[in-house]
Amino acid sequence: MTFHGIFPACVTPFIDGKASPDAMQANISRWLGTGVHGVLIFGSTGEFMYLEDDERRTLLRAAREATPAHVQFLAGCGAETTGRTIRYLHESAEDGAQAGLVVTPVYYTRGKTDAQRRYFEDVADASPIPVLIYNVPLFTDYELPVEVIADLSRHPNIIGIKDSSGNAARVAAEVRLAANNFDVFSGNPNLAFPSLSVGAIGGIYAFGNIIPEIFVAMYDAVQAADLKRAAALQSVVAALFAEIGAMGIPAIKTILKHRGFTPGIPRPPLQPLAPEVEARVISAFEKVTAEAIPYLVGD
Amino acid sequence: MTFHGIFPACVTPFIDGKASPDAMQANISRWLGTGVHGVLIFGSTGEFMYLEDDERRTLLRAAREATPAHVQFLAGCGAETTGRTIRYLHESAEDGAQAGLVVTPVYYTRGKTDAQRRYFEDVADASPIPVLIYNVPLFTDYELPVEVIADLSRHPNIIGIKDSSGNAARVAAEVRLAANNFDVFSGNPNLAFPSLSVGAIGGIYAFGNIIPEIFVAMYDAVQAADLKRAAALQSVVAALFAEIGAMGIPAIKTILKHRGFTPGIPRPPLQPLAPEVEARVISAFEKVTAEAIPYLVGD
Amino acid sequence: MTFHGIFPACVTPFIDGKASPDAMQANISRWLGTGVHGVLIFGSTGEFMYLEDDERRTLLRAAREATPAHVQFLAGCGAETTGRTIRYLHESAEDGAQAGLVVTPVYYTRGKTDAQRRYFEDVADASPIPVLIYNVPLFTDYELPVEVIADLSRHPNIIGIKDSSGNAARVAAEVRLAANNFDVFSGNPNLAFPSLSVGAIGGIYAFGNIIPEIFVAMYDAVQAADLKRAAALQSVVAALFAEIGAMGIPAIKTILKHRGFTPGIPRPPLQPLAPEVEARVISAFEKVTAEAIPYLVGD
Amino acid sequence: MTFHGIFPACVTPFIDGKASPDAMQANISRWLGTGVHGVLIFGSTGEFMYLEDDERRTLLRAAREATPAHVQFLAGCGAETTGRTIRYLHESAEDGAQAGLVVTPVYYTRGKTDAQRRYFEDVADASPIPVLIYNVPLFTDYELPVEVIADLSRHPNIIGIKDSSGNAARVAAEVRLAANNFDVFSGNPNLAFPSLSVGAIGGIYAFGNIIPEIFVAMYDAVQAADLKRAAALQSVVAALFAEIGAMGIPAIKTILKHRGFTPGIPRPPLQPLAPEVEARVISAFEKVTAEAIPYLVGD
Repeated sequence: MTFHGIFPACVTPFIDGKASPDAMQANISRWLGTGVHGVLIFGSTGEFMYLEDDERRTLLRAAREATPAHVQFLAGCGAETTGRTIRYLHESAEDGAQAGLVVTPVYYTRGKTDAQRRYFEDVADASPIPVLIYNVPLFTDYELPVEVIADLSRHPNIIGIKDSSGNAARVAAEVRLAANNFDVFSGNPNLAFPSLSVGAIGGIYAFGNIIPEIFVAMYDAVQAADLKRAAALQSVVAALFAEIGAMGIPAIKTILKHRGFTPGIPRPPLQPLAPEVEARVISAFEKVTAEAIPYLVGD
Repeated sequence: MTFHGIFPACVTPFIDGKASPDAMQANISRWLGTGVHGVLIFGSTGEFMYLEDDERRTLLRAAREATPAHVQFLAGCGAETTGRTIRYLHESAEDGAQAGLVVTPVYYTRGKTDAQRRYFEDVADASPIPVLIYNVPLFTDYELPVEVIADLSRHPNIIGIKDSSGNAARVAAEVRLAANNFDVFSGNPNLAFPSLSVGAIGGIYAFGNIIPEIFVAMYDAVQAADLKRAAALQSVVAALFAEIGAMGIPAIKTILKHRGFTPGIPRPPLQPLAPEVEARVISAFEKVTAEAIPYLVGD
Repeated sequence: MTFHGIFPACVTPFIDGKASPDAMQANISRWLGTGVHGVLIFGSTGEFMYLEDDERRTLLRAAREATPAHVQFLAGCGAETTGRTIRYLHESAEDGAQAGLVVTPVYYTRGKTDAQRRYFEDVADASPIPVLIYNVPLFTDYELPVEVIADLSRHPNIIGIKDSSGNAARVAAEVRLAANNFDVFSGNPNLAFPSLSVGAIGGIYAFGNIIPEIFVAMYDAVQAADLKRAAALQSVVAALFAEIGAMGIPAIKTILKHRGFTPGIPRPPLQPLAPEVEARVISAFEKVTAEAIPYLVGD
Repeated sequence: MTFHGIFPACVTPFIDGKASPDAMQANISRWLGTGVHGVLIFGSTGEFMYLEDDERRTLLRAAREATPAHVQFLAGCGAETTGRTIRYLHESAEDGAQAGLVVTPVYYTRGKTDAQRRYFEDVADASPIPVLIYNVPLFTDYELPVEVIADLSRHPNIIGIKDSSGNAARVAAEVRLAANNFDVFSGNPNLAFPSLSVGAIGGIYAFGNIIPEIFVAMYDAVQAADLKRAAALQSVVAALFAEIGAMGIPAIKTILKHRGFTPGIPRPPLQPLAPEVEARVISAFEKVTAEAIPYLVGD
């Protein structure tokens, strides 16, 4: 099994403090209408670290139901213990996820390469569905070394990676050093085009929530070898990142609401943006993304 | 309510993969026999990040049962969301904890001072028991700024801190800047004596599991103004830290087993020490702690 | 005055412990034969931090003599004090440098944005030649914030930047936020193609010493809108970086010697590679760069 | 040869942009009047990174002349190259320095343990005077590993260290692991008392410029086993650090001027404090140091 293309790292809608399966379904339908190739739920942007176990199951079933069978469907399954991660992989498989995204556990094992290696082998051995490694130093303050990823790529049940570092060299090295058919997804929007041009097979982005059309157009442009168009779209992504990238999930939810999605608000301790900041974010979003319009459709 | 003195940050015994309330009780009885002034369960050394919710309740009730009413009894209650932390504080209060230790949430809020401030205020407002802040950069890759701690110390339900940074300036600044009666505990064994000498009221240590007698003797020496003896004991602690500090929980559990406790083994992905390393750790432990013997009892 | 294209960050040849102007001239002639658009002396790869003042003048004059007037010629002029940097800019101008590359001073001013801003304004005010900012966190452990660069780009005598971070978002943001005609050079070979595709006007690389032909071909491919060829060449660069990037100047000098240049050896405390490592480096170089051959010439 | 006691890391007075040997002499006489056991010139606080070679010689000769023969006299001699460091050690020996303080070179060798080890061995082999290692992560963003220090302490011409990390564990480990008679000086004022109590033989501080009397009194208190007094003085030091520690050399020079010294102003790019900040710094200094008065003299 291999995956490819553009995925939003779907937000989890919290309405009145509760995770809403209905809103999740409504949002997924809208994303699918933009041409994305798949969805990831329970990524970092999905506030997976903030979910209770029962919420995970309800949301996953709802999301799966809203996603046609032919659309790629991934679920974050990482946790700090080997045991809990395996449990999440089993539950997610049972409820229809095609693969599980597993983040590096770090509280006691940051920097401990042997423990990381053992962890990924153990969860992949036990998992009923394929595993993708999730490298996200922004949140974990840790980077799994590329050589370890290369080794793990030989495991029959570890089939890819979402690398959310902003490091072009890493993504290129992963493409080069990993086993054949190892799916390298970039996770940092600033590297969308650079990654596709050195062999990544797609991208899974927080920004995939708010500008899925731009990433899909970029992906299509690269497939059509129209790299000039791809580069123009990348410039827009970079500009948007420069404006709102540092604001994280609250800004993503603000823009989604503005676009007609039902994102709810972040769960505390994350706080929604202040109203005056929301206005600035929306205005920057409108201004910057307007630059992409001439490039959304190829010749 | 104020606290003081030496606390082990008790390990959680996992036997055959399961958290054992019986072993927890047996261990607590042994620690209490060494003269410690209280116990903390569910600190970092207690692998709190690895516990399931039901295990927490079972262990806390067992630990509380094994601890006489006059002995100080703290429980780690931190989690990534405001809601879950408040739930843990309520459950822990119900089951007999006198205060809750609350670690800085970091996955989405590392470095976000406003969110941290709001988080601690919200959990302290909602908590039926007093809250101690837990600053532990080794595991969180984050330090709550001292000025924020100083502000939070004015909250009527935030009564202290366990500062596990190895930074003597921080501990001294906390003592100086915090509200009166704010309990500053050091959490880094290298700063045990330095912290006590600038006004910390005690210490809560991973090493408190394995050398409680040394910390108790140091505490007594400081109370008796016998700072020479305190300094000699600190040198032994520093020497032990230089030998095994970097090995973390697996080494603590190895030494506890050697000392006749029932620590079980760490939960995966943490791995127990290899047998040959265990032998070296025990031998270093015996050699270094022998140096403390002349100083364990005052004149 | 604006600059563009591919520049090697020329090594400084130390022969028998002495900087050799003759070897510098011989090497420059060879680089110019590969089609590079200019040369930079006294970049980090030129061991500028290791040069004495008299060596700087002798080397610069020799290098200038070996470089035809129509070829772009840059010299590193940064130092820790404002005064010394201004002196180097004056001397370099006198001896024929067209612009000076000025690294962020960091010993006392790392992280001090106001001091950085003031420093660059002061040296640019006083300099007889244009100034390019040099951002190189690998060596300085510091990154000048992009907004400061954007502001400085408005100074009439600050005309560009060599950004050697590996951060694609930074380079894109610099292109976007800087003044018109501000020359953004990438300095990290992993970002050569990504940078050119988002608007950088060239690249100045340590690897420009050893694979100038590959960068020139990539630059030409981008000019010819043959981005497929550019991406293929980028993959080779990434592969070479994965093999030898971490070895730094000693590996660059080893490969230059193998290619028939006269690089000498690094100055202590930098050490040359051990002979067995040299053999591995050369073999990796030969193997990886062979992959570039089909792409060196366009259709 | 061994050293001991309290040393100011003397500021270098720049008057009208020039290093002033006269002011250096006047300041040294004042420091010596406070009871300090020695002086260090060309430490970080001496802006050694900002000095020209001719200034070094003039200043050193002047400082030596102002320092009686029986007073310990150290000079910073570190530079980025092995060759320049050896030259500084020779010049300093010739002009009367008793030992040279040598900082870890980092531009190309940060994190390269082998190069560091070789560097210190080479300079110590070649030096006519003993060498003290200088570990100062605040400025170098690097820490020489303690095991390397332990090994280097066996070199007959490497006789000590100034460890300016704020890490109590490091200082204790250095005392424990180094060769006999290896002089461990703390360089971080927050660790003055903690370091003395675990076996450091003294301290060399930036704050030694402005509160030499407090450090001398603390040193005397430790010698007299009056650790209570030492701890009280440490609290004052910590309080002062919390107020002005982050402001660095400009604040030190402001306070020195206030105290009647002739410190001049920092050399650019370092900037003097703004007048309104100067007023705040002086007021904080007066307020905090008044707390030390009852403890300056023993019973």
